[in-house]
Amino acid sequence: MNLPEQVVIKEVGPRDGLQNEPQKIPTDQKIEWINRLSDTGLSYIEITSFVHPKWIPQLADALEVAKSIRKKKGITYAALVPNLKGLERALEADIDEVSVFMSASETHNKKNINKTIKDTYPVLEEVVNEAKKHNKSVRGYVSTVFGCPYEGEVSVDQVIDVSRRLFDMGIDELSLGDTIGVAHPKQVEEVLLRIKDEFPNKSIALHFHDTRGTALANCLTAMQLGFNTFDASLGGLGGCPYAKGASGNVATDDLLYMLDGMGIETGIDFQKLLDAAGYIQRQIQKPLPSHQMQIVHHQKESEQE
Amino acid sequence: MNLPEQVVIKEVGPRDGLQNEPQKIPTDQKIEWINRLSDTGLSYIEITSFVHPKWIPQLADALEVAKSIRKKKGITYAALVPNLKGLERALEADIDEVSVFMSASETHNKKNINKTIKDTYPVLEEVVNEAKKHNKSVRGYVSTVFGCPYEGEVSVDQVIDVSRRLFDMGIDELSLGDTIGVAHPKQVEEVLLRIKDEFPNKSIALHFHDTRGTALANCLTAMQLGFNTFDASLGGLGGCPYAKGASGNVATDDLLYMLDGMGIETGIDFQKLLDAAGYIQRQIQKPLPSHQMQIVHHQKESEQE
Repeated sequence: MNLPEQVVIKEVGPRDGLQNEPQKIPTDQKIEWINRLSDTGLSYIEITSFVHPKWIPQLADALEVAKSIRKKKGITYAALVPNLKGLERALEADIDEVSVFMSASETHNKKNINKTIKDTYPVLEEVVNEAKKHNKSVRGYVSTVFGCPYEGEVSVDQVIDVSRRLFDMGIDELSLGDTIGVAHPKQVEEVLLRIKDEFPNKSIALHFHDTRGTALANCLTAMQLGFNTFDASLGGLGGCPYAKGASGNVATDDLLYMLDGMGIETGIDFQKLLDAAGYIQRQIQKPLPSHQMQIVHHQKESEQE
Repeated sequence: MNLPEQVVIKEVGPRDGLQNEPQKIPTDQKIEWINRLSDTGLSYIEITSFVHPKWIPQLADALEVAKSIRKKKGITYAALVPNLKGLERALEADIDEVSVFMSASETHNKKNINKTIKDTYPVLEEVVNEAKKHNKSVRGYVSTVFGCPYEGEVSVDQVIDVSRRLFDMGIDELSLGDTIGVAHPKQVEEVLLRIKDEFPNKSIALHFHDTRGTALANCLTAMQLGFNTFDASLGGLGGCPYAKGASGNVATDDLLYMLDGMGIETGIDFQKLLDAAGYIQRQIQKPLPSHQMQIVHHQKESEQE
């Protein structure tokens, strides 16, 4: 099996996880959680989103969180930014990396951003240009790459078009998202072979959701094709916005279990990661859905019996 | 990606699933469930276990279940048999296939069968011989192939020794079990390359548990090596006996979602399978843990809101 020696896991739990949790977590608990994540060996944490609080009230404290965390050397602290207004706040917080986002499918883009794909480009371009002026690196998210909750299948050509536009704007990394968690390994192979072909020297991450249980198999497939950067949410925090309660992002701890077993280096300490998961689990007051946290949970229950 | 065109899924939910559920399901509900499973397109169903009811009270009605189900042509109905006494009952029920079982690790074998590995062989050999006399096919299970809950790592040599003994007895198929769900794809590759090498022309199934979330990735790896037979439990019924409440067998519906997506033929109807899962879910009165059933569950909840 041809596998990369090292993998970078980009922790998106404080943003993609928390924005999909029903309750609001107090700001100081978010800060404490991110500080604990910083001690696990993670090299990248997406800490919040500077979208308008009207859209995501769970992350209304973005500025305070971004300003108050204890930044550790060697870690990239990133945040989502939808427009110049959001970028202003992100710059005020001196965020390391800015993430712009859009969808590969027209309907999802419209519902998520309230703009056509065509009208989204100039908004993102402004953000990328302005961020670059401030020497920030920029990440570009493409959603619904493997399927759209409204349109179903999404053509790879469309994914490539959107991705090319983002690279042309100057993004430093592309993150391809299976937003609704429908991808299977053969599709991952088909899409990524095309992507490799179109963007041979670009930095590309995969953002899998585990809604149908295929996320780790999809990560494995991507690794066999040479991809080595994956977004994940600790403990599977957040779930799926399109089937509330079902699985969301691939869980950082489940991914790390597999990578550790296969001897692939990540720099992340498994036990420290589980401890950090335990911390946020106590704040949300329900068991986290990842396999590793379910084991911890049920072992504790057995001990108490 | 090199994948088999067809895969055989062997449904073990009525045995491996139900024996690990805390409550006893009434006999007529088990029969009804197996009858529904027979209508999904499955070609193999392990319906019960003829171990002494003292050990597995959940399956104390083995004989009645095996005698009362509506057997459909083309489906193999199998059952676990620990010894000649169990075989007698299995033969009385005219079961199609008999499964003998043991572990690759000494401690697990001792705790599970109350015998050393050495002392287990003659017992299984008697069963295989007697079953063959009655023209029954025989399956041999090896547990703890990828790790033991008591000993940790299990050597591949030991797995091969036990497997060879079983083949020498005349078993028709070997099922290699990741009893505690610790395997990762690289380990699967390492073990299966050795197994292929030692038993190039033998029928070999993989029996993965999803306790740590790696089961589908492990199935994918096995398929890439040419293996095409997998045991699974519908809806993830049963859970893990070593971490109560955590995931057990890979879920038939999760596996089928992935195989269907990849265009691999199984003969199984996805919707009929989900309906059959819905039936047993109503009997156990709690949501089944598979990803597909979680989606169904939460979609229903959203509709009711």
